[in-house]
Amino acid sequence: MKMNVPRAFHFLAILLLSTLCAVASPARLSDYIRPFVGAQGEGNTFPGPSAPFGMIQLSPDTDTTNWDTDSGYEYTDPTIQGFSLTHLSGTGCPDLGDFLFVPQVGEPALVAGTKDHPESGYQSAFTHDDESAAAGYYQVKLQKSGVNIELAAGERAGFLRFTFPASDAASILTDLSHIINGGRWRVAESRLRIEDGSTITGFHLVNGWAKERYLYFAARYSRPFDEARIISNGKPVTYQSYVNYRFRSHNEAAGTNLQFLARFKTGAGEVIQVKVAVSAVSAANALQNLDAEIPDWNFDRLREVTRTKWDRELASIQMEGSQEQKETFYTSLYHALLVPNLYQDSNGQYRGFDQNIHQAGKATEYTVFSLWDTFRAEHPLLALIQAQRDSDMINTLLDHYQQSADHLLPMWELQGNETWCMIGYHGVPVIVDGYLKGVKGFDAQRAYEAIKRTAMNPDYDGLAAYRILGWVPCDQEDESLSKTLEYAYDDWCIAQMAKALGKPADCGYFLKRAANYKNVYDSDLGWMRPKDASGNWRTNFDAHLFNGGTNLQDVTEATSSQYSWFVPQDVPGLIALMGGPEKFTAKLDSLFNATQSDLFKKEMSTNDLRGCIGEYWHGNEPSHHVIYLYSLAGQPWKAAERLHQVVSTQYGSGPNSLCGNDDCGQMSAWYLFTCLGFYPVCPASDYYVIGAPQIPRAAMHLSNGKTFTMTAANLSDRNIYVQSVKLNGKDWNSPLLPYRELKHGGTIAFIMGAQPSQWGTQIH
Amino acid sequence: MKMNVPRAFHFLAILLLSTLCAVASPARLSDYIRPFVGAQGEGNTFPGPSAPFGMIQLSPDTDTTNWDTDSGYEYTDPTIQGFSLTHLSGTGCPDLGDFLFVPQVGEPALVAGTKDHPESGYQSAFTHDDESAAAGYYQVKLQKSGVNIELAAGERAGFLRFTFPASDAASILTDLSHIINGGRWRVAESRLRIEDGSTITGFHLVNGWAKERYLYFAARYSRPFDEARIISNGKPVTYQSYVNYRFRSHNEAAGTNLQFLARFKTGAGEVIQVKVAVSAVSAANALQNLDAEIPDWNFDRLREVTRTKWDRELASIQMEGSQEQKETFYTSLYHALLVPNLYQDSNGQYRGFDQNIHQAGKATEYTVFSLWDTFRAEHPLLALIQAQRDSDMINTLLDHYQQSADHLLPMWELQGNETWCMIGYHGVPVIVDGYLKGVKGFDAQRAYEAIKRTAMNPDYDGLAAYRILGWVPCDQEDESLSKTLEYAYDDWCIAQMAKALGKPADCGYFLKRAANYKNVYDSDLGWMRPKDASGNWRTNFDAHLFNGGTNLQDVTEATSSQYSWFVPQDVPGLIALMGGPEKFTAKLDSLFNATQSDLFKKEMSTNDLRGCIGEYWHGNEPSHHVIYLYSLAGQPWKAAERLHQVVSTQYGSGPNSLCGNDDCGQMSAWYLFTCLGFYPVCPASDYYVIGAPQIPRAAMHLSNGKTFTMTAANLSDRNIYVQSVKLNGKDWNSPLLPYRELKHGGTIAFIMGAQPSQWGTQIH
Repeated sequence: MKMNVPRAFHFLAILLLSTLCAVASPARLSDYIRPFVGAQGEGNTFPGPSAPFGMIQLSPDTDTTNWDTDSGYEYTDPTIQGFSLTHLSGTGCPDLGDFLFVPQVGEPALVAGTKDHPESGYQSAFTHDDESAAAGYYQVKLQKSGVNIELAAGERAGFLRFTFPASDAASILTDLSHIINGGRWRVAESRLRIEDGSTITGFHLVNGWAKERYLYFAARYSRPFDEARIISNGKPVTYQSYVNYRFRSHNEAAGTNLQFLARFKTGAGEVIQVKVAVSAVSAANALQNLDAEIPDWNFDRLREVTRTKWDRELASIQMEGSQEQKETFYTSLYHALLVPNLYQDSNGQYRGFDQNIHQAGKATEYTVFSLWDTFRAEHPLLALIQAQRDSDMINTLLDHYQQSADHLLPMWELQGNETWCMIGYHGVPVIVDGYLKGVKGFDAQRAYEAIKRTAMNPDYDGLAAYRILGWVPCDQEDESLSKTLEYAYDDWCIAQMAKALGKPADCGYFLKRAANYKNVYDSDLGWMRPKDASGNWRTNFDAHLFNGGTNLQDVTEATSSQYSWFVPQDVPGLIALMGGPEKFTAKLDSLFNATQSDLFKKEMSTNDLRGCIGEYWHGNEPSHHVIYLYSLAGQPWKAAERLHQVVSTQYGSGPNSLCGNDDCGQMSAWYLFTCLGFYPVCPASDYYVIGAPQIPRAAMHLSNGKTFTMTAANLSDRNIYVQSVKLNGKDWNSPLLPYRELKHGGTIAFIMGAQPSQWGTQIH
Repeated sequence: MKMNVPRAFHFLAILLLSTLCAVASPARLSDYIRPFVGAQGEGNTFPGPSAPFGMIQLSPDTDTTNWDTDSGYEYTDPTIQGFSLTHLSGTGCPDLGDFLFVPQVGEPALVAGTKDHPESGYQSAFTHDDESAAAGYYQVKLQKSGVNIELAAGERAGFLRFTFPASDAASILTDLSHIINGGRWRVAESRLRIEDGSTITGFHLVNGWAKERYLYFAARYSRPFDEARIISNGKPVTYQSYVNYRFRSHNEAAGTNLQFLARFKTGAGEVIQVKVAVSAVSAANALQNLDAEIPDWNFDRLREVTRTKWDRELASIQMEGSQEQKETFYTSLYHALLVPNLYQDSNGQYRGFDQNIHQAGKATEYTVFSLWDTFRAEHPLLALIQAQRDSDMINTLLDHYQQSADHLLPMWELQGNETWCMIGYHGVPVIVDGYLKGVKGFDAQRAYEAIKRTAMNPDYDGLAAYRILGWVPCDQEDESLSKTLEYAYDDWCIAQMAKALGKPADCGYFLKRAANYKNVYDSDLGWMRPKDASGNWRTNFDAHLFNGGTNLQDVTEATSSQYSWFVPQDVPGLIALMGGPEKFTAKLDSLFNATQSDLFKKEMSTNDLRGCIGEYWHGNEPSHHVIYLYSLAGQPWKAAERLHQVVSTQYGSGPNSLCGNDDCGQMSAWYLFTCLGFYPVCPASDYYVIGAPQIPRAAMHLSNGKTFTMTAANLSDRNIYVQSVKLNGKDWNSPLLPYRELKHGGTIAFIMGAQPSQWGTQIH
């Protein structure tokens, strides 16, 4: 079925819709943000306030030692320990949670205590009835003390506002030994200093996921301390005689277990505010960041400034839909725009990958690069709507390449540290996709040098053998199957950059490497399979079990049945390898329709299983492009069904809506693209893959000033199938949405229907 | 007896002497330096090379855990562990010894092993026959490996030159966990990084005497590593599978027990050189310090540059005497000009007292301020012959005041840390003596603010009670007797500065405090005695035992019989208090002639007792001015006898020549002044006290360009008594040598004789 709408009418419709939109929608997009989304279960987000890509993230911590509560907050926990200044958003590994602030009334506890017995420490019971969160704002009333806490965050500085009951013994404890440690990390050193009667600074050095992480803070209190004490190992640091390690100062201390206790006599409803800021460089810079950003005591002003920033950033995609859809969509966009985080001080200094202090150049430095996740959809999204920041992030990657001991692009960067987490060299697709999508402001030659040197490093993760053999041998290297597949994709990206820069020899070389995926496809088994250096397949390998069921680390967080689809650079080649479109789609069907074996279930947590459809696991990134392969294999209606299923069951506006780690925005970015009806199956390529839109209309304001609009006529919970597509007014039967059709702005107009159609069934 | 030499002839004689001197003496003063002086026993000096006031001190370490081997080197030890980059000179507390370099041949050991069984580790036997040291140079051949090691040092950078035998398994280990720790300190964090095939950088953070001390280093090797390995906890840091804390890099690591092992195949006699530098700021700065100072591979050039610096600095006092006297004198001057140490990088950055990185202003920053020791003679010496550096040091004290959490002048500063070691606020006499002796280049008003605020700090060491009571009460505060006496002196210094700046009220106030010494004199006991807050004397107090024999900490490292003399600001008042000159001198006699009780001996080590004459203990600073009190009490011949006795028995040119800690040059500075015939009994006063010269002639070139010359006619081992003095051509019968007579240059001419004379016996 074809619709033929006159072009002029089409534009008029858009104009009309926009106007209606402006009238119908509430004044502010930030009102749709639901910070608790993902705060329950595997989502691992934090509910506290943050500015877009901000350096500071104030948020309550309910747990520090549970490995799976990586943001410090689990929605089902009954207690809150306190409010710390930094948090990871959606990672699968815990860290941060620096500098916990804890208001108390009565004799202050100095240890956290337990959830079951909050009276054993400073943590307090709370209920969600007494809790609220919004863009740049969080509030909770603690049951133990009756103190109401409000949090607001700017770029590098934030506010804690405490409303105390009347008390002779009100206090605010700052615990430097608190970190979200998953039971493993340690504070190697810390320092506290009372700068004056209402100001402190401090520091800790944490051996954590980031192996050597320095963070400093400064805090100014709205009223002078009635009493101020530094506490070391539970004892006040005071002038002491007869000791060998003599503290002579009340005003400063160093150690591994330091706390600061400010005591106050408070009247009923008395508000005490604390302004805080962080720096990775020095206490002096933290203080400078604080004073530069918050010169006054106006909590509400800071909250409003940050909320306005969110309004502005969220406006980059204006969409229509139900209240639930709007909340889900804008919260997803919120999560996509939280990370990477600003990582340079107001004076331009930052701590480099070499732990030296550098002065930033023209570009702004960022941190928290969860690249194995974010190269997929998060960075492709940023390349479209946050080009300036994406450029800064690419420059950060290049600075890290230059500063790293191994002259490698970062793998999983965290506050100036390489965590060596996950696999691949996925800085490459981030850079190349940015470069080919018109992200300017970085030196392409310098970028290419970084890319190539990274991909040629003989010491890196099996690369030497990969270069000789064409695959990473499973008898020499962990995660060899996944590495082979991902290296091949990254190599293809390099070839694209080499081509663009006029380096045909390099292009040819890396294109050859890009075909290496074929070397690990076992046509007898019908799945990708680990291979040793002699060319023998891994024995006793079951493609439907984690790591092939061998207990060897061949596959990264996945089964081969999940990983075998990772050939985004050559889907036709993969289809051919798997026996043509029919066998290919049948195999895809088998993934979604598989009965999960007991062993499969055993490897997954209950939450993980929520993210599964058969053996398809939306909760982790290797699956993220898989549904779109239906589109590329001529069965777009199956993509439509699965996309609708995932969007309906694995996203939403409640705390428990994310069934997998948000992974610094990747899970959310998948949702955003999917709603818009297309997805970057192969970042660094010149096309997106059309799926099926999930919202009736959206206008994406590209960073180049153009607007690309999507409309999905007739869309409903039943009308999930694409019937026809018009792209910039032309009939469009291809599943590919070329970047060139999007970059100048324009329109993609879907007509949706309740039945599969012939649209897109012809393979191009 | 009086001599009357015509003035013209006098000048001629000097001219002639100077000429003869130039002919007779060897070409270079630096040849007299004997770096082993004080390296045996209590002297606690180090034998390795250092530039004057240099930042880096390369030296062999024979021990790390013995509390009394504070420089890391004990001459009687049979083994050397290796060669580290920083050392304290003559302190009574161990620290530093950062970054040990150890050459080995054969399978390298990774632990130090024991002295008794050097085969249990990397330490090696050596003999003094295979060892030598000179200005800016040290050499030793290690018996285990046969490697010859040579060391040279510049300001911030140095050389290690290794001459290897032929070996397939030569290596140089760098041990970051090595520190001179006295069995107590710990490495809280360290980092190593292989920058390229012949360069490394590293860092450690040490919780030691300096509670939070950051030091970075860089090392460049003269040839590429054949193999380079970072070792963590005894195991190579390599790419490893199946571990949670994944090291993926060979090239960098963080941890608390890191080593770097460079392996080489060497030919016979092959020389491998390592250039090293340190920084308290960053690895990048260490590298910059290295390249700025040593652009080439010329070991001998650096050695010569530093030797030339020593020639120039030593020339500030040109003396005559026997070879032994010259060696002793110039080695003392060498030790006096080693410390404080440069503490700013070649780019002007330094780590402040607040642990922030600062950019130095016009003044150069220094570290290692052993002020309780050095205010006595070391800084008064520097004020005369190193005015520019003394000015920089005073500016450093003021910067520390400004940066300190307590806004106090430093007490015992070590690499940006307050160690809270010893007592008093003796930054005050350093600053005031400098100010009154014409040391320019610091802001007197700022200095006065720092001085006054320090002396008025209500939190500092019993000062609050002292201000109310007039003494530090022994029931509230440790070391109360010593504190009372030293505060009173420091207060007198403040009064002098207040007077000079036209602040009569302050002057009066602090002069009043300066008389507080009287409050702790027990006229019944005849000695200073601790007093409690109610005015009661400490009971069961024995003035002849450490701490009065009470096991309470009333007296700082001393007996009251030693401490009671500490009233430099009012010796006439003290004489009166003690019953007049006769009783005073009889009491002084009793000090020297006392029979040491068994309990007294028990408190002292054998080496300490070597520093004693009766109960007089030259080995520690409280006694240093005491002999000169004879001169002020009309019995200068007794001063002459005791000065000659101390100089003859407690100084020399051998390793065992110092019988007490050199204390960053104070013990040496005492010797230098004493040789010249006068001593700063009361720094910040306008006079020195004349004792008895110990060398025939010396010309002191003041920093203002003038020369003050001392001649001691007829001086011999028998002719130790002053017969007469001419000061600037005038007969001079006073024991006081006014600063005004010295500052314009001039001459003090002693005539010496074998018998006590009437000279100086009249009290002024």
